Amino acid sequence: MGRLVMKFGGTSVANIDRIRNVARHVKREVDAGHDVAVVVSAMAGKTNELVEWCRDASPMHDAREYDAVVASGEQVTSGLLAIVLQGMGIQARSWQGWQIAIKTSDAHASARILEIDGTEIINRFGDRKEVAVIAGFQGINPQTNRITTLGRGGSDTSAVAIAAAIRADRCDIYTDVDGVYTTDPRVVPKARRLDKIAFEDMLELASLGAKVLQVRSVELGMVHNMPVFVRSSFDKPEDIDPHGTPPGTLICSEEEIMESHVVTGIAFSKDEAQISLRQIEDKPGVAAAIFGPLADANINVDMIVQNVSEDGKTTDLTFTVPASDYNRARDTITSSKGKIGYARLDSATDVSKVSVIGSGMRSHAGVAAKAFKALSERNINIRAITTSEIKFSVLIDAAYTELAVRTLHTLYGLDQT
Amino acid sequence: MGRLVMKFGGTSVANIDRIRNVARHVKREVDAGHDVAVVVSAMAGKTNELVEWCRDASPMHDAREYDAVVASGEQVTSGLLAIVLQGMGIQARSWQGWQIAIKTSDAHASARILEIDGTEIINRFGDRKEVAVIAGFQGINPQTNRITTLGRGGSDTSAVAIAAAIRADRCDIYTDVDGVYTTDPRVVPKARRLDKIAFEDMLELASLGAKVLQVRSVELGMVHNMPVFVRSSFDKPEDIDPHGTPPGTLICSEEEIMESHVVTGIAFSKDEAQISLRQIEDKPGVAAAIFGPLADANINVDMIVQNVSEDGKTTDLTFTVPASDYNRARDTITSSKGKIGYARLDSATDVSKVSVIGSGMRSHAGVAAKAFKALSERNINIRAITTSEIKFSVLIDAAYTELAVRTLHTLYGLDQT
Repeated sequence: MGRLVMKFGGTSVANIDRIRNVARHVKREVDAGHDVAVVVSAMAGKTNELVEWCRDASPMHDAREYDAVVASGEQVTSGLLAIVLQGMGIQARSWQGWQIAIKTSDAHASARILEIDGTEIINRFGDRKEVAVIAGFQGINPQTNRITTLGRGGSDTSAVAIAAAIRADRCDIYTDVDGVYTTDPRVVPKARRLDKIAFEDMLELASLGAKVLQVRSVELGMVHNMPVFVRSSFDKPEDIDPHGTPPGTLICSEEEIMESHVVTGIAFSKDEAQISLRQIEDKPGVAAAIFGPLADANINVDMIVQNVSEDGKTTDLTFTVPASDYNRARDTITSSKGKIGYARLDSATDVSKVSVIGSGMRSHAGVAAKAFKALSERNINIRAITTSEIKFSVLIDAAYTELAVRTLHTLYGLDQT
Repeated sequence: MGRLVMKFGGTSVANIDRIRNVARHVKREVDAGHDVAVVVSAMAGKTNELVEWCRDASPMHDAREYDAVVASGEQVTSGLLAIVLQGMGIQARSWQGWQIAIKTSDAHASARILEIDGTEIINRFGDRKEVAVIAGFQGINPQTNRITTLGRGGSDTSAVAIAAAIRADRCDIYTDVDGVYTTDPRVVPKARRLDKIAFEDMLELASLGAKVLQVRSVELGMVHNMPVFVRSSFDKPEDIDPHGTPPGTLICSEEEIMESHVVTGIAFSKDEAQISLRQIEDKPGVAAAIFGPLADANINVDMIVQNVSEDGKTTDLTFTVPASDYNRARDTITSSKGKIGYARLDSATDVSKVSVIGSGMRSHAGVAAKAFKALSERNINIRAITTSEIKFSVLIDAAYTELAVRTLHTLYGLDQT
């Protein structure tokens, strides 16, 4: 007996047959005696269609109207799943964001959840054993009483926030993969599914390109210490023992991970571009002169590397931007050349970033040093390095990405045995 | 300067191009200085798709969930039209039923509007010259905070109710016809578009098969004395002089119709079946024994004709039902034969009902007598007759429908000159 949130994405509810399959997953948990809240996305393709209509209606559309249009997708799915569940003899009702209410900020189209009142849903668990079927991705701006959406992928965030609000024991995210892997299995066939991963590590993995979960949902899980279980929606509901341990990855607090590896996973990103400014003056204000204009142009700068200058006068500075922003970034810098003051601009677009993640690094020295040695033995040149408490990243030539990932995966003992 | 409600149906908002056309109609009225509230249906085909999904999800679906699903169609259109209007430089915002709120009864899927608070919409006319774009067909059950819908065609009703709530000067219903005709122009090429028609006459015409407007919207117009103007959505917005009198039919109170004809129009319905019970006992309770079981079987009985019995003992009774209910009606009656007590059941399915409507009949005698004479001169046999204050109907062989309608249309001076 427990309390569970189950979240299903667009491909899992793409048509009535697939919604029936979702309903069987729900029935399994209800039959096992759990209180269940289900969070659903729009049917696959529907959100894109609605977004397309808004764009077609006006390229500069009002985000409040966009939200009213786009939120309808989840509204439909929640009603349909409630109908299917009732047809299977399960008490269920749909909930729109404004009905619960899921109060959000006023940042339409990318709102943040501020507060969820879970009282009524909890009461109905007790009174009627009623399953709550909740439209994901949306909420309400309490000042204006208008519908807000959380931005693409926001249903993951809805699910974790609702789990916290109803004090669930766990939030299950059903996806098209069966968990979180040590790295991309398409690159490293020996990649291993992690049984557990700490929130911190998952945050780094998620933001570094492992597209399993929305970053904000992991942040929320960490803040509320809500265990999030990533599992496959393709498993047949009938084959799963609700009392057993299904395949998947539990994202939880570090303390709950008994046998901790130093390194949890290897992430990589190929869409990087590098810009190096040679012989900039080493004085206050120069970094602002570089990154201020880039921020104004909405260009997201990732790695930033600046050495201590040798002569106390000039130094080199390297940073990376998404490859798609490279041309704009280069133009922005060259047009500020007078203000910044640099001798030469070097750049490269065929570069990739490989990152090694593990909260165990905090207590282990020399983790990065091992990587530098292994990469050099493979003749992989490291262009730049950045480190944080629980990860380090190297910038290398893109051609060596796969080799580097495999080398590091083996080095840190992540390969399947 | 006035206050206007404009209502557009599904074919008028079937895609973004057609929504743009609707927006140009709105712009015309805004430019003319009017305060405008627009009521929209779902894009053509969308409601059917959503209904189909509900049926597919479960044949016995919960009407509350059905409403949550189906109401999303109008939500989408209202947002899209608001976006298009804004793109044309017009202040606009969308309103869902629950936001206004449009409070309804709890009869989900066929709710009745109870109360609409028009204050905020009126305030925004004054403060910002803002067009209200309102999702038709829906409201909210104030007890449960759940979305309700008004039943098919309910957007007409929404429009008239909103017009009353915001004290509009007129409610314009844009349809695929350019007004209300004296009869179906496909049957009588000389049918004439009426410039004006009284609410009472329109009620009879609408319920007798002239499918221009939802009956309930006409009732509401009558109750609130809200003039309803039926006009074509195919007219080019640019060709219309907002200060002139566009083609269309104004449905209004009788007093506003100066030059009143005795007869307003001729309606007909071919999908009728007739059942006659011979020699039933002429005693209290026999009508209940016949129509009770039919009501229990949800069969809608239309005409009922019973003569004063000659001998004080037995009489004949004739009634009509929709042709689609004929078999069920016949079975219902025959299985109650013992209780009713009749000698013989005669029936006919190839019959049609032709009705002559005109509130002028109240003050004119002999209107019906003229019709009976004219029909007999054409050798059209009248099977049954019913009359009310402002209309009379005859039941005839279906083969003579068109001839009868044309004959009566000419007889009462309705032909175009």
